[in-house]
Amino acid sequence: MKTLKIPEATIMRLSVYSRYLTEVDRKGIITISSGDIAEGVGVSPAQVRKDLAYFGEFGIRGVGYNVKDLHKDILKILGLSAEWSVSLVGLGNLGLALSTYKGFKERGFIITSIFDKDPKKIGMVVDGVEVMPVEMIEEVVPKTKPQIGVITVPGAFAQEVADMLVKCGVSAILNFAPIVLNVPPEVELRNVDLSVNLEVLTFNVGGRI
Amino acid sequence: MKTLKIPEATIMRLSVYSRYLTEVDRKGIITISSGDIAEGVGVSPAQVRKDLAYFGEFGIRGVGYNVKDLHKDILKILGLSAEWSVSLVGLGNLGLALSTYKGFKERGFIITSIFDKDPKKIGMVVDGVEVMPVEMIEEVVPKTKPQIGVITVPGAFAQEVADMLVKCGVSAILNFAPIVLNVPPEVELRNVDLSVNLEVLTFNVGGRI
Repeated sequence: MKTLKIPEATIMRLSVYSRYLTEVDRKGIITISSGDIAEGVGVSPAQVRKDLAYFGEFGIRGVGYNVKDLHKDILKILGLSAEWSVSLVGLGNLGLALSTYKGFKERGFIITSIFDKDPKKIGMVVDGVEVMPVEMIEEVVPKTKPQIGVITVPGAFAQEVADMLVKCGVSAILNFAPIVLNVPPEVELRNVDLSVNLEVLTFNVGGRI
Repeated sequence: MKTLKIPEATIMRLSVYSRYLTEVDRKGIITISSGDIAEGVGVSPAQVRKDLAYFGEFGIRGVGYNVKDLHKDILKILGLSAEWSVSLVGLGNLGLALSTYKGFKERGFIITSIFDKDPKKIGMVVDGVEVMPVEMIEEVVPKTKPQIGVITVPGAFAQEVADMLVKCGVSAILNFAPIVLNVPPEVELRNVDLSVNLEVLTFNVGGRI
């Protein structure tokens, strides 16, 4: 399976297609066309075909795609056929929102440890996971071996937390703190800025006025 | 200014560049090269030049860009030279995280009304805004005239809330509920799925193994 030079936007759309296929599959639909997928998620049929073409031949011309097979293939491409262990650092409002977000578990992302520095939060149990002090990261993380670290601490502490997670063997970091983090090249880093979504929205609205 | 056929990924990167330019400007730096921007945000210099080229000529070859001018131009492109009034519906963990998110206000997104259906939350004041019952949307929204509605209610209520917001004249909706919403074509809709970011991460990690 080729995985080189795939645009990130394609990966994001594959993620959306897979969620749509879950819905379609639940309804008992067996085959689906690129046009149906396109309509369901709000992109063009050509875009759907182009996105899928990166990964080989899936459908049958004039028949469409087998829903279950396509779904399974996309999940495999996205690395979602396995479970991923996640460590979350920072149980503020956003950390709490993410740690109780059902969508993560459904997609195989299991939060196995949560850390915070607020004594009032330590010892709390969130969705079955006990909140531990950040000082314990270096003790706990090497044991639970999460592949992914999610950072939802204030910007001033984010680099320190990232360093600890990397030291403990975490290979991918999703950073919600509004700063540029430095991680070694072998660690996959993704920064999420929540206002980016509002900005795409205002750009699109602006273009219409 | 041409605003047609700009890839969404470009808009998202412009949003990231603008945030980086804020940092650079604070440090008192006057000019910057595409290489510097690229390094600062983690993309290639060619990508930076390509993204900016959609909107005209900004820099001077061999000299670079004037930080303040480029920043102002990008903010204008993104529709961020004005303030946007935002109505948030659903004050769960995510709603609370978003309504207290400093990044929104800094970028000109001002939350002017918050609605929830939980009697315990109604009357609470979040960052100066009083939480009102969802039944009051149709009374309050036409008065405060938010351009943007942010939906952070459970999936089962999201369509109903979207319908109310559209009826009250909201022209753009950012939807965090995990369902496909139907809105009239003149309303700009953007769906945010928080697990998409984890999936881009696992795809990238998978590609390296």
